[in-house]
Amino acid sequence: MTTHSAVSLSGPGRLEAFSDGVLAIVITLLVLELKTPHLVAPDDAREALAALAALGPKFLSYLLSFVFVAIFWVNHHRFFRLVQRVDNGLLWLNILLLLALSFVPFPTSMIGEYPGNAVGLALFALVLMTAGLAFNLMWRHARSHQLYHAGVSPVAVAQATARGLVGPALYALAAVLAFVLPLAAWVLFGVIPLFYVLQRIGSAGK
Amino acid sequence: MTTHSAVSLSGPGRLEAFSDGVLAIVITLLVLELKTPHLVAPDDAREALAALAALGPKFLSYLLSFVFVAIFWVNHHRFFRLVQRVDNGLLWLNILLLLALSFVPFPTSMIGEYPGNAVGLALFALVLMTAGLAFNLMWRHARSHQLYHAGVSPVAVAQATARGLVGPALYALAAVLAFVLPLAAWVLFGVIPLFYVLQRIGSAGK
Amino acid sequence: MTTHSAVSLSGPGRLEAFSDGVLAIVITLLVLELKTPHLVAPDDAREALAALAALGPKFLSYLLSFVFVAIFWVNHHRFFRLVQRVDNGLLWLNILLLLALSFVPFPTSMIGEYPGNAVGLALFALVLMTAGLAFNLMWRHARSHQLYHAGVSPVAVAQATARGLVGPALYALAAVLAFVLPLAAWVLFGVIPLFYVLQRIGSAGK
Amino acid sequence: MTTHSAVSLSGPGRLEAFSDGVLAIVITLLVLELKTPHLVAPDDAREALAALAALGPKFLSYLLSFVFVAIFWVNHHRFFRLVQRVDNGLLWLNILLLLALSFVPFPTSMIGEYPGNAVGLALFALVLMTAGLAFNLMWRHARSHQLYHAGVSPVAVAQATARGLVGPALYALAAVLAFVLPLAAWVLFGVIPLFYVLQRIGSAGK
Repeated sequence: MTTHSAVSLSGPGRLEAFSDGVLAIVITLLVLELKTPHLVAPDDAREALAALAALGPKFLSYLLSFVFVAIFWVNHHRFFRLVQRVDNGLLWLNILLLLALSFVPFPTSMIGEYPGNAVGLALFALVLMTAGLAFNLMWRHARSHQLYHAGVSPVAVAQATARGLVGPALYALAAVLAFVLPLAAWVLFGVIPLFYVLQRIGSAGK
Repeated sequence: MTTHSAVSLSGPGRLEAFSDGVLAIVITLLVLELKTPHLVAPDDAREALAALAALGPKFLSYLLSFVFVAIFWVNHHRFFRLVQRVDNGLLWLNILLLLALSFVPFPTSMIGEYPGNAVGLALFALVLMTAGLAFNLMWRHARSHQLYHAGVSPVAVAQATARGLVGPALYALAAVLAFVLPLAAWVLFGVIPLFYVLQRIGSAGK
Repeated sequence: MTTHSAVSLSGPGRLEAFSDGVLAIVITLLVLELKTPHLVAPDDAREALAALAALGPKFLSYLLSFVFVAIFWVNHHRFFRLVQRVDNGLLWLNILLLLALSFVPFPTSMIGEYPGNAVGLALFALVLMTAGLAFNLMWRHARSHQLYHAGVSPVAVAQATARGLVGPALYALAAVLAFVLPLAAWVLFGVIPLFYVLQRIGSAGK
Repeated sequence: MTTHSAVSLSGPGRLEAFSDGVLAIVITLLVLELKTPHLVAPDDAREALAALAALGPKFLSYLLSFVFVAIFWVNHHRFFRLVQRVDNGLLWLNILLLLALSFVPFPTSMIGEYPGNAVGLALFALVLMTAGLAFNLMWRHARSHQLYHAGVSPVAVAQATARGLVGPALYALAAVLAFVLPLAAWVLFGVIPLFYVLQRIGSAGK
């Protein structure tokens, strides 16, 4: 259907809007994994508290996934502010990123249900690693195909692209840790976004 | 990834669109908590009516949450009409607001299922209180970081920010009431939006 | 929070975007009511066909609701093309419309599960009637508060507003028919959108 | 409600936004079909791996549907870049396309649950065929009603419209194959998007 020069998706507008939609839905669907616990005595506050406490890993996995997807959303927008033109390669790498992120609710549910199972934790880590790598490929593709705005510094882009591998490396580490010591994988999942968000807020005034 | 001055999210456009998406999804997902009741006699109108009547607390919790989220959506837009610039702090406070609001379906389901349980009611109140406080922090952050449009009156902003604490205070009261008299918490949940909406409609012509 | 004249929602842009989001979600969530049937012999085509045939009322209720919500979406946009300004009254009437339409999946599920039960059919009709009345109130409110564009003909608006009561009247009739002869209510549900869509396509060239 | 010349939906803006919303939701809802498997030994990695392996057809059907909907989304946008004006016919053909695509989660779930059942596979193929035909009717309608931009080449549009029948023909073939050899239908489902995506990426630089 490359019938006309106008057919190619030129600006990032629609791709951003579609990605926004997907990420907004992913981040909101996560709550559907949290089911109201069954109470024997409907009005018993103690039993309800105990039932909520038993859902601890589910709440934690919900919170983690929410924050991870939110970070991807923030980074996605920062990236597209640098991009002037979208070609087919970037379009499909972006769809790969959305595929990974829209799959997140499944491993989220697994680690919430089986917090001590290495396979669920490794799957959670690998899905985030895939998303991180897809995003990194977007940075690289945009550089090699000159998709950035004219004023964007090539050195800065190269630095950001290199830094973008830190996330996937940490997720790979978490996938390995899951099989050695599941708790360590959980701690790492908690530290990554905390580190990221604090760093962001720290640079807020700049 | 602060590679370039253009990287910072300057205008509120994308943040509003993403928030719109999340709130539209939250408000629409609420209906998934309402499951078709099981009928022994499929064509029996009397049994169906009785089954729907038994779902009363679920319908009520659905209606309450819908209206609360709608009010947050209206206020969110009013706020962003005053804002000229979004910095990292405001971005993450907004994500905190979305986290609280996208969690709403869980306590909504709890109070619908166990309308007399203090823990569910208190959780519902605390989630709304968290959303209200996150929103209030957004007002304060925008003031202290000069994010408002030039023409916005500082006195009016200060008054609105102070008024914005009434909601969280009422939610805190509801959380306490839940443990004393659950019905009083329900009444308070019903009165807050009614008061808000009527006040709004009353000022429609201004 | 009426701190500033710029606070009032002036144009219909954001309200339309939010309504679009809600209606897109409602129309897409409907499919979640359709559950894969259980098959005793997983590879048996005959059993699968019989199981799908047994889901007939569910498919039909899915199709009906999809078309009804789509018609509301089309009409919603036609309306907002005439509107220049949104005030608080119109904002909250629009939220009432969204409340009714986002509730549609519940009665859709009921009539799919219990196609012969008068209560489900009447509830389905009453929810659509409420949506139709909310929409009609929007037309009236916009007229009495001068929210239309300058070039919009008052006579044409008055005619459209009067015609807008035909839908709610037919839904009310369906609610009554449900208790007399459920099948007649189904037929009426099928005729209303067919009539509407054919009329629309007929006027496509104008 | 054709009260005013401004009532007709002129540009494709809102229709694209609404379609974006529906497709983003469909593509994200697919993950809800993937349920956490039940494990007897919560921490047993071997059992978890075996349980995930047993979900193989579900993962595959998820992946296929994601890619099919993504391709429709890409094509939808390419099409609307050629379109200057939307009339009622195009509007309702687009709604027919959305109806078919928003139904995709149901046959996706069926082929994931019963990968060897001809009926599920044929239904999956027929739903995609319907979407492909609706989309092809949109191309034809836009041509016969002069809805394209002035600069769009009629020959190129005619070629693209003819090429647009390849997809539906392949889906029809898959529906037939499903009853002869289910595995062949699966292979065909896998080959169609692979072929499409590779062709796209191959023409990325043009």
